Amino acid sequence: MASTGSPELLIVMAASATPAETEHVVARLQEAGAVARVQRGREATVIGAIGDRELLATLPLEGFPGVEKVLPILKPYKLVSREVSPDPTVIDVDGKRIGDGFFGLIAGPCAVEYREQTMETARAVAAAGATMLRGGAFKPRTSPYTFQGLGSEALEILREAREETGLPIVTELMDPRHVEEVVEVADVIQIGARNSQNFLLLAEVGRSDKPVLLKRGTSTSVEELLMAAEYVAKEGNEQIILCERGIKTFEQSTRYTLDLGSVAVLKHETHLPVIVDPSHAAGRRDLVLPLARAAVAVGADGIIVETHPRPEEALSDAAQQIPTAEFGEFAREIAAIVELLGKRIG
Amino acid sequence: MASTGSPELLIVMAASATPAETEHVVARLQEAGAVARVQRGREATVIGAIGDRELLATLPLEGFPGVEKVLPILKPYKLVSREVSPDPTVIDVDGKRIGDGFFGLIAGPCAVEYREQTMETARAVAAAGATMLRGGAFKPRTSPYTFQGLGSEALEILREAREETGLPIVTELMDPRHVEEVVEVADVIQIGARNSQNFLLLAEVGRSDKPVLLKRGTSTSVEELLMAAEYVAKEGNEQIILCERGIKTFEQSTRYTLDLGSVAVLKHETHLPVIVDPSHAAGRRDLVLPLARAAVAVGADGIIVETHPRPEEALSDAAQQIPTAEFGEFAREIAAIVELLGKRIG
Amino acid sequence: MASTGSPELLIVMAASATPAETEHVVARLQEAGAVARVQRGREATVIGAIGDRELLATLPLEGFPGVEKVLPILKPYKLVSREVSPDPTVIDVDGKRIGDGFFGLIAGPCAVEYREQTMETARAVAAAGATMLRGGAFKPRTSPYTFQGLGSEALEILREAREETGLPIVTELMDPRHVEEVVEVADVIQIGARNSQNFLLLAEVGRSDKPVLLKRGTSTSVEELLMAAEYVAKEGNEQIILCERGIKTFEQSTRYTLDLGSVAVLKHETHLPVIVDPSHAAGRRDLVLPLARAAVAVGADGIIVETHPRPEEALSDAAQQIPTAEFGEFAREIAAIVELLGKRIG
Amino acid sequence: MASTGSPELLIVMAASATPAETEHVVARLQEAGAVARVQRGREATVIGAIGDRELLATLPLEGFPGVEKVLPILKPYKLVSREVSPDPTVIDVDGKRIGDGFFGLIAGPCAVEYREQTMETARAVAAAGATMLRGGAFKPRTSPYTFQGLGSEALEILREAREETGLPIVTELMDPRHVEEVVEVADVIQIGARNSQNFLLLAEVGRSDKPVLLKRGTSTSVEELLMAAEYVAKEGNEQIILCERGIKTFEQSTRYTLDLGSVAVLKHETHLPVIVDPSHAAGRRDLVLPLARAAVAVGADGIIVETHPRPEEALSDAAQQIPTAEFGEFAREIAAIVELLGKRIG
Repeated sequence: MASTGSPELLIVMAASATPAETEHVVARLQEAGAVARVQRGREATVIGAIGDRELLATLPLEGFPGVEKVLPILKPYKLVSREVSPDPTVIDVDGKRIGDGFFGLIAGPCAVEYREQTMETARAVAAAGATMLRGGAFKPRTSPYTFQGLGSEALEILREAREETGLPIVTELMDPRHVEEVVEVADVIQIGARNSQNFLLLAEVGRSDKPVLLKRGTSTSVEELLMAAEYVAKEGNEQIILCERGIKTFEQSTRYTLDLGSVAVLKHETHLPVIVDPSHAAGRRDLVLPLARAAVAVGADGIIVETHPRPEEALSDAAQQIPTAEFGEFAREIAAIVELLGKRIG
Repeated sequence: MASTGSPELLIVMAASATPAETEHVVARLQEAGAVARVQRGREATVIGAIGDRELLATLPLEGFPGVEKVLPILKPYKLVSREVSPDPTVIDVDGKRIGDGFFGLIAGPCAVEYREQTMETARAVAAAGATMLRGGAFKPRTSPYTFQGLGSEALEILREAREETGLPIVTELMDPRHVEEVVEVADVIQIGARNSQNFLLLAEVGRSDKPVLLKRGTSTSVEELLMAAEYVAKEGNEQIILCERGIKTFEQSTRYTLDLGSVAVLKHETHLPVIVDPSHAAGRRDLVLPLARAAVAVGADGIIVETHPRPEEALSDAAQQIPTAEFGEFAREIAAIVELLGKRIG
Repeated sequence: MASTGSPELLIVMAASATPAETEHVVARLQEAGAVARVQRGREATVIGAIGDRELLATLPLEGFPGVEKVLPILKPYKLVSREVSPDPTVIDVDGKRIGDGFFGLIAGPCAVEYREQTMETARAVAAAGATMLRGGAFKPRTSPYTFQGLGSEALEILREAREETGLPIVTELMDPRHVEEVVEVADVIQIGARNSQNFLLLAEVGRSDKPVLLKRGTSTSVEELLMAAEYVAKEGNEQIILCERGIKTFEQSTRYTLDLGSVAVLKHETHLPVIVDPSHAAGRRDLVLPLARAAVAVGADGIIVETHPRPEEALSDAAQQIPTAEFGEFAREIAAIVELLGKRIG
Repeated sequence: MASTGSPELLIVMAASATPAETEHVVARLQEAGAVARVQRGREATVIGAIGDRELLATLPLEGFPGVEKVLPILKPYKLVSREVSPDPTVIDVDGKRIGDGFFGLIAGPCAVEYREQTMETARAVAAAGATMLRGGAFKPRTSPYTFQGLGSEALEILREAREETGLPIVTELMDPRHVEEVVEVADVIQIGARNSQNFLLLAEVGRSDKPVLLKRGTSTSVEELLMAAEYVAKEGNEQIILCERGIKTFEQSTRYTLDLGSVAVLKHETHLPVIVDPSHAAGRRDLVLPLARAAVAVGADGIIVETHPRPEEALSDAAQQIPTAEFGEFAREIAAIVELLGKRIG
């Protein structure tokens, strides 16, 4: 009944496929060094192919005459897969840890606007127990008429905030020409949702030695997110934190639909830590706490939230930033669930 | 290399599945009279199952320990499949035909509001070359505070319109308790998008002897639409017209996203005629003509559009109804593309 | 600077609208008894209309020449709105409560398959602290070739389960012709996702005196769900429990995308209790616990989960049912978070 | 009844907003030089703001206490808007025109693979009447294990193809560091779907003097696409061709859902030409012709399609490329509809 060698690809031939078309597929597989097994039947013929996974992936079998569909049996990612490396990865930045029971509480302003706003926020979140400071220096904005970030000046302010508070800095890299400048200041390099499939940028941070916080694009699937992480890992950098931040759906009552089911799936699929950004998904302040609680409960390894001393003056994403003055209470609420789940903050 | 009997299901076992778990699946398949072939390998084990299609469909294999996924090789529908019945179905109502080169031009008001509005519209669309008259007697409405249709009174008006113009009547059935009343007047029974997975209603019209116009739900996949048609066909009625009318997506500039690619897919998958409703997808009058033209060009077997003598007074869907006075010009534009594609209206 | 009377509708005229078109809109509003205020300007003209809300809702203003868009200022629902009735509704069935601090733990098989399966499940979930028993008698299924439920026989089994365990019964009504039969046995009448916009069925249960569990359709927006509840409430029955169970998105790694952000939004918008069905969203057993925990954490008033003594033998949804033997542990995990949030089970 | 000055923003205050909260919003608007009009009423208060459009856009009003929502009355784009510039833009590259009755027929391989494949394709599409040659030098690929394009070598081959055939070259720019190199060879610079919100790249091509072909991202809305075009235009380059290529939805039977309704909307909203890429949307060869026909019929100003001498050997997108040998017939079919609509190719 059994035989050895599990197929890595299944090629289903159309009902109307001719024997010559099937032979043609088999011949091409054999050319590529693969073993092909054919099961012909009343209604469909199925070819199982066993061979080098990467080589098989490059064969354009779907374009062959008579081929109805090609079903990959194996996952298209490898380095980031939990099947391949079952032990959970822990990201450790100066003793602040994320993953495997350590919960990261990352907070800070959407954008660095001016020195005092950032310093005031940094002190407040440090006092409340945050483990890292987030802050945008370069901001991708949908409209060319809105605030685009302070750039290099913001990096200086973030450096100062780290010096004073000791909090590692998470900041976004948008332009491959800024790699050096950003890597010099950032402790964790963020790749934003809009760049989650910018493969050039992924390869760049894959060659750096700083951990990478990779946000899921708003229409990126779980599999595409893992492939994006694979791009980074393939260049040698396996210090990657994945971040769910909401996907685009028909629902308009929240800015994006926070996909916590995907967080649970990711915890099965990959050894990388997975965190959640409830602020961008919600788009409104009053939903941030419930969604942050849900993120902890679903098993996320951390959250990243936006805070501002005076949200109504914020130059971007004003509606969703938590007032700094309320952050202490927010952090206590989060800590209670983190503890209930048997984890500890940072 | 080859063997006989093509698998109807492929069961992929998880990398971590034990031999006992694989045996367990095989045993259950054999109990159900199926032949199971196992291919064990380095990274995955795959079981191919050959047996009675319907019986296999009822086995809850995805719930078995060790099973990662179950891949059906055969389509889950049969009666409506072009593979099974390659000849295109032609719906013929009193000599008005839809399918296989005959193009149906169905027009009329969204809802029957009062006698004169309907009679005026019926005369105008008949004069312009429409092949059937549409008109809602019972209206499903999102809000309980809006017009719900005239009901039985509307059916009487539609009957009169048919008598005067000779146009067959297309009208919606919403309630299984109205079957008799609607079937008595309707020449084609419409099942609306909201009921496209109301299986009770599908079975009811499957037992009638009138053709069925089955609208795709706004979140129904092509496969689910074909399964809905299978519900009708299974009861004995294979006179089914499928209708694409837009799906729900993140895009907000049109009311729904008209999915013309699915029309092209359906023309491959099924022998049933496929028509398009550009009015509901667009939600605004000025997009109806371009989308109707595109529907013809993609290969649809007909269109169904809304017209009203004075759209601004319409009690429902006012924004998308074409003024009756402009329908003649509309019909000429459509006819030109129908002809170019080598088809003829009705 | 100020004036009295807030607009209930804002009508934005197109830049190209003529003064006559604006006057025409105003005249129609005035005919309908509304007060209209016009603000004309360089780039757009905006008309604010104040009048009877329901009357304004029926005016087809979007179809008027020159009108670009109509913005409703007020919500289209009323009876279910928290703005109108701020006090949270508590559903109380024989002392089992849902809402306002009382958490409902509803469990049971997807479908009633045979007497012992249901009784065994009922005893186990009762012992573990469940507050209600769910079980499908009539099952809507995508394929006509799969198990459709035991029907009346199942209702008898559910009645017996209630007698033995004391648990109130939640079961689905699919067909308006079954109202009497289902209402006689059900303590809570479920309206399934596929019927969430079946307005006839909504009106039927609106006329019954049993609480209604209204599931969100897989492509129903939060606003449409509230409108569906309004249909029920308008007939006199305000005992409604809303249920989020996942929406259709591009993501394929879970069966549906559980939209917990919408639960948080619903808690703001309505006084009705909101529960979550993690089983249908996940489609796989191992995600049910994390998603159930997240549902509690986001503020849901209850969960409804599927359990089966031997999931692998289940006739429907086998992959997502929790083994009854593990339900006690599941219930303890849930109880811990319920308590942390200051609520109590039932 | 009327007053002058149309609001550019409407701020709807929550029912629970205090008078002080309303005053606070008004004060901030006045600080920003805007005029604010307040209409207070029974159920809601609405503030209309008139002032400088760009300045108003930067005010974080949604974050203010008491604000329920902010409704922009004016479109957020300007340079690309048809309201602002009603005359259609015509892109003219060496006498090959796109827009205002001129239809662009752009064809070529997905990727430049080697000299002969590209030259053979270029000759064939030129002979068949194509107006431009497409060909990828740098390829964004979801998997790091697949072919990434020939890079600079491909640019050389494209240059040679232009010299021999006279066809202008359309090729993609992915990396801001490649601007000079790509701009030197490309006659039209393509920005791919994955970069449609890469604002740095948009600004770069906005500073070049070559026309830009801007593809819609697979989850970019029509409004976001127009904002992306605005980014290019704002830097001085208004030679922009928009391209619809399918969006991500729940439907899986086509690779993406081609959104032809959006093409019709874009033709209203902007003076820029709009073309369609049916190859990427379909993902399979047999759907390319019907979707291309539909694109012409809906009013697109051109199409861009993939062709390959031997699709089954293609290194990318094998399944969707049309064999070069069939391209002549394809072009004739397209030309017939183009003519019917009163347009001319190139």
